Amino acid sequence: MSLTIRAYAPASIGNFAAGFDLMGAALAPLDGSLWGDVVGAKKASTTTLLATGPYAHLMPPDPTQNLVLRTFAFVKDALATKDIPCPEMAFTLEKNLPRSSGLGSSASSIVATLVACQILLGEPFTRSELLQMAGRAESLVSGSVHLDNVAPSLHGGLLLLVPGEGGSSKPRALPWPSELVIAVVHPHCELSTEKARHVMPNQLPMAEVLAFAQNLAAFVHALHTKDQEIFVRCLRDVLAEPRRAELVPGFRAAQKAAMRAGALGCSLSGSGPSIFAVAEGTEHGEKVAAAIQEAFNTVGLASEARLCGVDPLGARVLP
Amino acid sequence: MSLTIRAYAPASIGNFAAGFDLMGAALAPLDGSLWGDVVGAKKASTTTLLATGPYAHLMPPDPTQNLVLRTFAFVKDALATKDIPCPEMAFTLEKNLPRSSGLGSSASSIVATLVACQILLGEPFTRSELLQMAGRAESLVSGSVHLDNVAPSLHGGLLLLVPGEGGSSKPRALPWPSELVIAVVHPHCELSTEKARHVMPNQLPMAEVLAFAQNLAAFVHALHTKDQEIFVRCLRDVLAEPRRAELVPGFRAAQKAAMRAGALGCSLSGSGPSIFAVAEGTEHGEKVAAAIQEAFNTVGLASEARLCGVDPLGARVLP
Repeated sequence: MSLTIRAYAPASIGNFAAGFDLMGAALAPLDGSLWGDVVGAKKASTTTLLATGPYAHLMPPDPTQNLVLRTFAFVKDALATKDIPCPEMAFTLEKNLPRSSGLGSSASSIVATLVACQILLGEPFTRSELLQMAGRAESLVSGSVHLDNVAPSLHGGLLLLVPGEGGSSKPRALPWPSELVIAVVHPHCELSTEKARHVMPNQLPMAEVLAFAQNLAAFVHALHTKDQEIFVRCLRDVLAEPRRAELVPGFRAAQKAAMRAGALGCSLSGSGPSIFAVAEGTEHGEKVAAAIQEAFNTVGLASEARLCGVDPLGARVLP
Repeated sequence: MSLTIRAYAPASIGNFAAGFDLMGAALAPLDGSLWGDVVGAKKASTTTLLATGPYAHLMPPDPTQNLVLRTFAFVKDALATKDIPCPEMAFTLEKNLPRSSGLGSSASSIVATLVACQILLGEPFTRSELLQMAGRAESLVSGSVHLDNVAPSLHGGLLLLVPGEGGSSKPRALPWPSELVIAVVHPHCELSTEKARHVMPNQLPMAEVLAFAQNLAAFVHALHTKDQEIFVRCLRDVLAEPRRAELVPGFRAAQKAAMRAGALGCSLSGSGPSIFAVAEGTEHGEKVAAAIQEAFNTVGLASEARLCGVDPLGARVLP
């Protein structure tokens, strides 16, 4: 019997408030449950994919169009450049994250696939190669390379993407205050990343450029110095949120409700429609999540809420 | 005899590499000398200004047009809002910094004036009020409020301007590695801040926005984590320098010479024409400064070089 590897990759918040395209966080539910896709892989005579899980029915009917097999195609190509033969694989996908939700669903499928292959094949890739492949696979969905979901889903943590070699980016871990709770609420509607990108302008006025850069740099500084005043002031999205707010029904009301409930900050998760709010502890997080859900209810949207911390581990093989 | 207060405010590097408009450093020559303007103030029957020092002859002939008296006008107004009577003052200005040099010359005159008044008048102002006045006075020269010279000249340190109340900015100290040496070279030519601002565009493409914000945030992160790889990669100006380089004769050659001499980074000081390069220790700093000066010589520019650290004190009263 062939060995089966099952790899888990957590949900994530891309565009983490101040960090449009540059900062993302892996999510770990406080109740200890897993929240992310799981990909199983074993060597086989032909490559196949079997999708299960609560969101499997929303997958493309043609399995070769699924991100698991499309990601595996990158793995094959990368192995070929290393002159390593690539076996055929039988994949399973437990699709636990809803697509177009702002929860890093595609990143989770991609990263779980890569990690399953990496382990099954004896770790042929460096961490940096895995991240590059993940970025290329993510671009199949969003149209260009963005690492703010795949990097945290792979490495864990709250990550800042910093300049790497030759115009590339690479992740660095930021010190997230572990006592804080992130209330993540997913209203039951979809918003495609492509549509959310479409409302972003190609050019920005200089005053806005400086405000964005200042806010991000100050947020990073606040994390390192535990400067709560600046942390709270900069836990916001001055760039994308003003342009995307109207794409998410009830967002502004939900955000107001979160802030009235004492959240330290509240913004879109990724490009939405999910939103996240930062609270001071579990009890406070429950209150904030309830306020957000009530606001979505008012516009007729059911929603799902989870209280999370930042997942320090990232993608991993399940026993 | 009336008490005389003499206040010193150090030279400074605005637009500190990665931090266009948002980061600045106060300078302290390694040889222990002072490098900045000194303003003397004492109560008098009429307000007067006597300018001395190596650059006094370049001051406006009408003393009321000098920044010392224009800054004093802000002091008078601010005292009036507090219902505090303002005496007439006899000022002296030792003008030690050349104007339009990129060394924070106007900030130095402004801040020294404010600190002399603050001490002579029994500290009527908060630090925040002093900074606000300094910003308004600086805008007389540059056309709008910029704090990246006045804030470090007042407070000392390498400062990041972070978001304050209602769209304002306020300074936060960054942890500059004190073992590093800053070679500052002032070629004998002038470049008005206004002219240097004129070449900056009103709008920026999104890719450049992200590159600028990423570079600044990563630089701040590198300072806090002592990540030398990222520090070196991000000790650069991706925003203003490409547009201003051609305004400074010999800048590109001087920068290349500095990097060939092993500088960790080299960019314009403020809007130029002075440039600064970061070196690893005094001996290395001397080598880097010599390389820069030789490059300026090649284009027919004499220059002055100083090896500096970051001045942790900022403006202060002299004995």
